Amino acid sequence: MNVGVLTGGGDCPGLNAVIRAVIRKGLQFNFKTVGFRRGWAGVMEGDFMPLTLNDSSGILARGGTILGTSRTNPFKEEGGAEKIGESIKKFNIGALIAIGGDDTLGVANKLYKEKGLKVIGVPKTIDNDLSATDYTFGFDTAVTIATEAVDRLHSTAESHQRVMIVEVMGRHAGWIALFSGLAGGADCILIPEKPFDVDEVCRIIAKRYARGKTFSIIVVAEGSKPRGIPEITKDDSIDAFGHIRLGGIGNWLSKEIEKKTHYETRVSILGHTQRGGSPTAYDRILATRFGIKAMELIKEGKFGQMASLQGNEIKNVALSEAVASPKLVDDKWYRLAEVFFG
Amino acid sequence: MNVGVLTGGGDCPGLNAVIRAVIRKGLQFNFKTVGFRRGWAGVMEGDFMPLTLNDSSGILARGGTILGTSRTNPFKEEGGAEKIGESIKKFNIGALIAIGGDDTLGVANKLYKEKGLKVIGVPKTIDNDLSATDYTFGFDTAVTIATEAVDRLHSTAESHQRVMIVEVMGRHAGWIALFSGLAGGADCILIPEKPFDVDEVCRIIAKRYARGKTFSIIVVAEGSKPRGIPEITKDDSIDAFGHIRLGGIGNWLSKEIEKKTHYETRVSILGHTQRGGSPTAYDRILATRFGIKAMELIKEGKFGQMASLQGNEIKNVALSEAVASPKLVDDKWYRLAEVFFG
Amino acid sequence: MNVGVLTGGGDCPGLNAVIRAVIRKGLQFNFKTVGFRRGWAGVMEGDFMPLTLNDSSGILARGGTILGTSRTNPFKEEGGAEKIGESIKKFNIGALIAIGGDDTLGVANKLYKEKGLKVIGVPKTIDNDLSATDYTFGFDTAVTIATEAVDRLHSTAESHQRVMIVEVMGRHAGWIALFSGLAGGADCILIPEKPFDVDEVCRIIAKRYARGKTFSIIVVAEGSKPRGIPEITKDDSIDAFGHIRLGGIGNWLSKEIEKKTHYETRVSILGHTQRGGSPTAYDRILATRFGIKAMELIKEGKFGQMASLQGNEIKNVALSEAVASPKLVDDKWYRLAEVFFG
Amino acid sequence: MNVGVLTGGGDCPGLNAVIRAVIRKGLQFNFKTVGFRRGWAGVMEGDFMPLTLNDSSGILARGGTILGTSRTNPFKEEGGAEKIGESIKKFNIGALIAIGGDDTLGVANKLYKEKGLKVIGVPKTIDNDLSATDYTFGFDTAVTIATEAVDRLHSTAESHQRVMIVEVMGRHAGWIALFSGLAGGADCILIPEKPFDVDEVCRIIAKRYARGKTFSIIVVAEGSKPRGIPEITKDDSIDAFGHIRLGGIGNWLSKEIEKKTHYETRVSILGHTQRGGSPTAYDRILATRFGIKAMELIKEGKFGQMASLQGNEIKNVALSEAVASPKLVDDKWYRLAEVFFG
Repeated sequence: MNVGVLTGGGDCPGLNAVIRAVIRKGLQFNFKTVGFRRGWAGVMEGDFMPLTLNDSSGILARGGTILGTSRTNPFKEEGGAEKIGESIKKFNIGALIAIGGDDTLGVANKLYKEKGLKVIGVPKTIDNDLSATDYTFGFDTAVTIATEAVDRLHSTAESHQRVMIVEVMGRHAGWIALFSGLAGGADCILIPEKPFDVDEVCRIIAKRYARGKTFSIIVVAEGSKPRGIPEITKDDSIDAFGHIRLGGIGNWLSKEIEKKTHYETRVSILGHTQRGGSPTAYDRILATRFGIKAMELIKEGKFGQMASLQGNEIKNVALSEAVASPKLVDDKWYRLAEVFFG
Repeated sequence: MNVGVLTGGGDCPGLNAVIRAVIRKGLQFNFKTVGFRRGWAGVMEGDFMPLTLNDSSGILARGGTILGTSRTNPFKEEGGAEKIGESIKKFNIGALIAIGGDDTLGVANKLYKEKGLKVIGVPKTIDNDLSATDYTFGFDTAVTIATEAVDRLHSTAESHQRVMIVEVMGRHAGWIALFSGLAGGADCILIPEKPFDVDEVCRIIAKRYARGKTFSIIVVAEGSKPRGIPEITKDDSIDAFGHIRLGGIGNWLSKEIEKKTHYETRVSILGHTQRGGSPTAYDRILATRFGIKAMELIKEGKFGQMASLQGNEIKNVALSEAVASPKLVDDKWYRLAEVFFG
Repeated sequence: MNVGVLTGGGDCPGLNAVIRAVIRKGLQFNFKTVGFRRGWAGVMEGDFMPLTLNDSSGILARGGTILGTSRTNPFKEEGGAEKIGESIKKFNIGALIAIGGDDTLGVANKLYKEKGLKVIGVPKTIDNDLSATDYTFGFDTAVTIATEAVDRLHSTAESHQRVMIVEVMGRHAGWIALFSGLAGGADCILIPEKPFDVDEVCRIIAKRYARGKTFSIIVVAEGSKPRGIPEITKDDSIDAFGHIRLGGIGNWLSKEIEKKTHYETRVSILGHTQRGGSPTAYDRILATRFGIKAMELIKEGKFGQMASLQGNEIKNVALSEAVASPKLVDDKWYRLAEVFFG
Repeated sequence: MNVGVLTGGGDCPGLNAVIRAVIRKGLQFNFKTVGFRRGWAGVMEGDFMPLTLNDSSGILARGGTILGTSRTNPFKEEGGAEKIGESIKKFNIGALIAIGGDDTLGVANKLYKEKGLKVIGVPKTIDNDLSATDYTFGFDTAVTIATEAVDRLHSTAESHQRVMIVEVMGRHAGWIALFSGLAGGADCILIPEKPFDVDEVCRIIAKRYARGKTFSIIVVAEGSKPRGIPEITKDDSIDAFGHIRLGGIGNWLSKEIEKKTHYETRVSILGHTQRGGSPTAYDRILATRFGIKAMELIKEGKFGQMASLQGNEIKNVALSEAVASPKLVDDKWYRLAEVFFG
């Protein structure tokens, strides 16, 4: 049997580890694996490459994806879904593994439901905001990079007596901020799930000063929102009073804190450094287990399913369930973080 | 209430993160935390220090333990258990948190069962071989360090056309070898749970050469045993034929492979570099959660219990259960690793 | 003899390594070392601590400075220089080692010249822009951190087909940008010494696309200036045409490139993560050698001098020479970088 | 003109950075670069590949060498030198860049002197023991890896109250041991250039215990020799008294220290992990500069020369000078290290 594999959506450390595991497990099952290039676009265009044992060599530790990726959605293209179906038939693809996030897996689910395609999903989101799996690969790497940044800021914050803000990824879910803040020992963590009050942040800083800690480190997810204030965008803009507003929540927060506390404040914006490069050992193993599971599901003929980490086990869940609702930071986790505020 | 805390047994990245969480959560509960020095020895001798908010500063990312550690077992010392009881009474310690492995927790359990002491355990083993918890802190750090070593050996193995052996920790359980071998892309992984056949290892190497891979990387746990051969000790010795045997399984294996395959073989023995230094983000968070849970168990009056990771939740298990049986690498995990052999 | 030591100005990995070397070499010479807190402020206020062998323990690998730092300039304070002189006399300080940048060493030089104080300087600038020494400690660490960021962006730039901008430190000198750009394999490097033309940058990007490289990485020093355009400040502002301008050169450049090329562009602003945390091995050794040299100069009675790396040797130069003129990136270095543009 | 390039001898981080620079600078000069595979063997066999702009992509940060390497010496093969000459003529190679250590450069020099070949050398030795250049690429990476190991051992040595030995590379020259020992804060450093006395080492350990430092870290180069004792080999052996001796100086030293001091002692043997993997930023830049210089020397027609770091400049020296005598650790450097012993 020919098994196709594709990677869709944004970059995420561990994609190559999944592909490697798929190739290797496929060989054990005597499947022939082919890789479609640039996500769904490659399937539509019949752009693929055979994936042999040699292709699995040396890619485990590498960031990016040897297949390339795109955000192409066949359901948003004229006759896109039909092209997918034709490709699958023409190239005799017995089953298809789609590695991606919400969008990629949503397409996979629709192709399974509406076109009867034999699809298996592997979850990928740097933000860890998929409810159908405990963790996704790439997240531990992102947290590790952000934590190293927080570690480095500690010494410099201390010797400069400053407030240091680290803006990390997370538009809707605050997992990266929460975990890197916890692991880095941040004095305050701001996440999209908890609209915050700048005065409360300033009170935390002031409380620290009062006990001789003349520096503070704040980790803020890019999607965090101040309470009662219109959305802060990445772009600059002019506010209701004709004042210019700086792009990004980190910059905005910095200005507000300086204004209210008169403490020097500095911002680091880690940006895409969080989603590139070699995956951590944890992510390589999780990605490997997902790849193995995907092939096992194909062998067992369980289609329309997604590999999922549940506790310490890799299980399967329906793709429809996977894309149903995002996983946000809940109160229990945030209360844990608050133990270390101030 | 006064809460005592101690760290016993070997070094393990994350110990300070537990202590920090204990101090912080204690402040929230209005407990007064004191730290006993050098494990059970400090309790016996009444050697302790108050642990304040300031003591929790700057220790999260640091290896070692600010309390020091020892292997002292009060039940093996004349009147040791009695001295513990007297100390607890004299210094008015309302509850005691023991952070340690099998030995330390075994003492904790005995003190709880036989002396009625109000003890809570926090599991610590670099080897991840405790059955009552999914993972222990320190393990991810050890795996990360060993994986980095395997990563580095890949380029050098390839350009030298050599067999490279990495000897990692694990006397009875092969978890570090299994995980670092999986994450580093080892061509063969040897663990104590699976006595191995040198000829089988050589066959894997030969198979690789046959397909043009003129190098191989083998990760071997220090406690791995060749089938049908008397135990390899760290010391050298003279074998049945009057030949000298090199100390350690890594050295032994190297000699055997060179003898049988005539391929150049080199050994790296990571030793204690695996258990020192700053913990990974993963380990800092796990350790933090354990520390928080320990204080919560005290607050709830649930003594004789241990904090435990079960799936994605921190729960509690009876100390007696925790020290019952070691967790070894099972067949399912090893078969996963074998997908990538050769 | 009592030898005083102080650290002034901004944080820089390696400060503690200098202090450690000073203490150790002092013991060899039978000097008594004392550390003044918070730079020149501590000398003015007589705020110091004895530095013993134990104080030198465990600080080599740590960022920050155990003495604290400040930007206090005694010559800008009413009677400041006099207070320094009185302190030195009162506490019987036979010689003073000032570790710092332009400002701190400028004060040292003035105190030596005008007040006859027995001062020795140790150069410290993360930016490597001191002409009297080949390299300064902290610089290699900053370059290493920025290079890691560039490394990580490579995989993600490639899979997203994007232009990635990394804004690094360097207000007047582009050494960090030049070195991290060279080491990270940037496709274009922009530095303050070479006002740039956005169209030229866009041409480089376009040339890469033309040969199939659908991504580009640009390293830009924070002080880089577009030719013919008024200065870009960290603050946002309104330009001559009433348009809002985003704060910082990275953000500005990103907007311009997107506007002119229509390629998606993203910015990472590393900020103070570049100057915190543990120094690299290179910086620890350089800092150690500087500390040793400072003490040797005191022993030899060569005051008004600064430790300096010249080729592979640590020599001494007059403080007056050290603070004379900044070291900027010269044409030879920039032409080397240009070999790899596009 | 066609320019050939080859890499010979052992693996060394930075080889690919040299190759990349050679390709890039060659394009600027309109040279056509070809890469010979497996060192001199590839030249003899006419086994080469064209090196285009695309081949220079993505290799800067990678360990190993894309050309492969070997220890083949044409002067030790029947008609080897003649084959080299024929290849050069047949494939119209106008100049040849040989990247390698003593052996590879020795061959290059002989081919230049005896056969009139237009050869340029680039020095490569992880051990930094070449007298004709201040530093060689790969050395900073090796020192960085060994320093990280020493860092990690600090916390674990402290909490276990142990003597920790780290055996690092360096058969004849102790540079890696000296630099990693200095940067890691070792309490004693042993190098081949200074035969040592075990009793002196034990005195240092004892002195530390006396002042409350109940742990010690010793960095030992693999080629270090105890005074008055026959050579310690990697193999075990039987000594004069019929006792078995463990392989390697690290193991030997460990036994001796335990015997004489009764302190628990542990050994880590870093092995080839020191010479693999991604080069540091420092090594990437040095390697890049060497590659550029090699091409410039060809352009200038200065053959029989080698690129060399002298102070802060890349200059050229005669190949004959480069291979003349090894650079050993001198007294001045060792006395610097001794400041921190005990």
